[in-house]
Amino acid sequence: MPSAPQTVAALGEFALIDRLAAVLAEVGAATAPEFLGIGDDAAIWTPTPGTRAVITTDSLIAGIHFRLDWTSWRDLGHKALAVNLSDVAAMGARPRLATVSLALTGAEPVAGLLELYRGLGTLAAAHGVVVAGGDIVASPERLGLHLTVVGESWPDADGALLTRDRARPGDLLAVSGPLGRSAAGLEMLLKSAVGSRRSAESDRAIGRSVASALPDLSADRRLATADFLVAHHRPTPRIAYGRAIVAAGGRVAMDVSDGLFGDLAKICARSGVGAIVDEAALPVPDAVRAAFPEEWLRLATRGGEDYELLFTADAATLDRLRALCVARDLPAPAIIGAITAPPAAGSPIRLHRADGHEEAVGGGAFDHFGGG
Amino acid sequence: MPSAPQTVAALGEFALIDRLAAVLAEVGAATAPEFLGIGDDAAIWTPTPGTRAVITTDSLIAGIHFRLDWTSWRDLGHKALAVNLSDVAAMGARPRLATVSLALTGAEPVAGLLELYRGLGTLAAAHGVVVAGGDIVASPERLGLHLTVVGESWPDADGALLTRDRARPGDLLAVSGPLGRSAAGLEMLLKSAVGSRRSAESDRAIGRSVASALPDLSADRRLATADFLVAHHRPTPRIAYGRAIVAAGGRVAMDVSDGLFGDLAKICARSGVGAIVDEAALPVPDAVRAAFPEEWLRLATRGGEDYELLFTADAATLDRLRALCVARDLPAPAIIGAITAPPAAGSPIRLHRADGHEEAVGGGAFDHFGGG
Repeated sequence: MPSAPQTVAALGEFALIDRLAAVLAEVGAATAPEFLGIGDDAAIWTPTPGTRAVITTDSLIAGIHFRLDWTSWRDLGHKALAVNLSDVAAMGARPRLATVSLALTGAEPVAGLLELYRGLGTLAAAHGVVVAGGDIVASPERLGLHLTVVGESWPDADGALLTRDRARPGDLLAVSGPLGRSAAGLEMLLKSAVGSRRSAESDRAIGRSVASALPDLSADRRLATADFLVAHHRPTPRIAYGRAIVAAGGRVAMDVSDGLFGDLAKICARSGVGAIVDEAALPVPDAVRAAFPEEWLRLATRGGEDYELLFTADAATLDRLRALCVARDLPAPAIIGAITAPPAAGSPIRLHRADGHEEAVGGGAFDHFGGG
Repeated sequence: MPSAPQTVAALGEFALIDRLAAVLAEVGAATAPEFLGIGDDAAIWTPTPGTRAVITTDSLIAGIHFRLDWTSWRDLGHKALAVNLSDVAAMGARPRLATVSLALTGAEPVAGLLELYRGLGTLAAAHGVVVAGGDIVASPERLGLHLTVVGESWPDADGALLTRDRARPGDLLAVSGPLGRSAAGLEMLLKSAVGSRRSAESDRAIGRSVASALPDLSADRRLATADFLVAHHRPTPRIAYGRAIVAAGGRVAMDVSDGLFGDLAKICARSGVGAIVDEAALPVPDAVRAAFPEEWLRLATRGGEDYELLFTADAATLDRLRALCVARDLPAPAIIGAITAPPAAGSPIRLHRADGHEEAVGGGAFDHFGGG
């Protein structure tokens, strides 16, 4: 009989902190001297002269934002940091440090938390983000991850950042990459029996496990499914892209976390504008269209968690951005529509359908309590 | 029959955000334009040139760190911010902004959360702290408050901050104010039947409710009890004191959150020193000694949550600090012992008892999981 894995409760808080610190060192993530305290530490850094600073916070709660039977501990650590880095990327800023507050039931396997820190630390190391402190608290029923990330404007940006409130009628509307892959991955998980615990880390293994649960999938579909699941479990924060938008002179961006329409509605509200989106121009991968012939438009516009950047810019700025994207090996922006004057009433967003007609797009971001 | 109070679930997330923002405006707390988002906002600030920055995070979980039948919503909001500001004070820094992540069951009364924001916002306004963003997430079983505060060195401090690693043998050991009041308040709550929900906000009302539960208390004791409960429920972050320590040339401080001995052990460990504490010099109020004749020393040295500053300094620095305390209307530092060479083995802390003998002090900070 295999022995039960050691739990956090058995190891104790202070020994856990030492083990987590060792993992961060192992993956090359910089830490502040007292990187994880028990609630009374402050980490120190020196802001780069002439920059402006940004701060963002995001919480992930077990059963609400993730399911441990659908994701690996390592991917969870990656994603918890990635969604915060994506917010910093959407400001056109450079992430500098992260604090991590772990709310633990005590029943978590120590090996799982070490894997979580491997995922988080590897992403932090890749972007030079210091894991600068944190807190460990007891949360008897449910694991929670509460991260805060501080960033600053890029040193060569003269303090410029991207916000949501400066979109102007006549601007073009663009995204940094494909839409709908993450939602397709989630849909796969929801619709299939792929609820079995992921035992391997590699993308290929994910694809295989999905494929074995869905034996009717062709080889192409299996590869696509793996791609969807990677997009869902290991989103890439578009930090270099945000920097390029600022460098090109862009002023407005956000990340697509709640779905294109939900997020675009926020730009419209904050800028006092309307928008028109061209269905035919949406960069939805063929694999998403093929896997979800009836649902791909919903997945691409309302599915969320793509973590691509949604931004507006005039034509000259977009020209400069295209040149920067070539020089920096980034994908060219996909123009998906335009900013318009605000409508007199009703939804600020219209969708230009592929069949030529136009329709108003209903709002509705996700309400955690379903109220209203 | 009184109607049931409106819950967060009934009101909905977005209406709640609007109501919370209105409360912050009402109490004069500055907010960033998008002060509370749904997880994808970053707030912007401009670091003061020439300063260094600090960041700290602290979580409060219902049933672990607070009990809603023992504290009012308003005091809870005050305390959640105060414990974070205390960390910033202990760095000798000026707090600039706070992010608030609310993990809500949905069953919380809206009126309670508005009170929480009144308490939090009033303290933020008093110190010019911007409530700069946050996150609201569902936490089905248990309310959690996850705050992060950013501060920076005082503009006239030339980047100087207080840390734990620079205590030197020969330094004196001091605290900014009385010890044991908060622990005495908690002890009152634990030992008495004062578990009834606090219905009034004022300190006097707290004293009355305790007094009515403990009718044998004299008038003096009632006043003292109210004082203990205020210390426990509404701690004061010693921000001006931390600034004065830096201005006097001090280099080492922390706040007393886990108890004098537990926190002093951290300074000893980080600085590689020992310490001797003089029982007769401990600033324990007469009321604490009178109310707990057998336990006052334990409450004052291991009770925690005093949120006074514990610091080390040489005699010349302390002289400058005393002068600053007079000029700035702050209490004079209480010298409670000295830093020594590290012992060859065993506990770094010795206690010089009132009867003249010396004893080694065992360690042991609070472990959230009781492991080890």
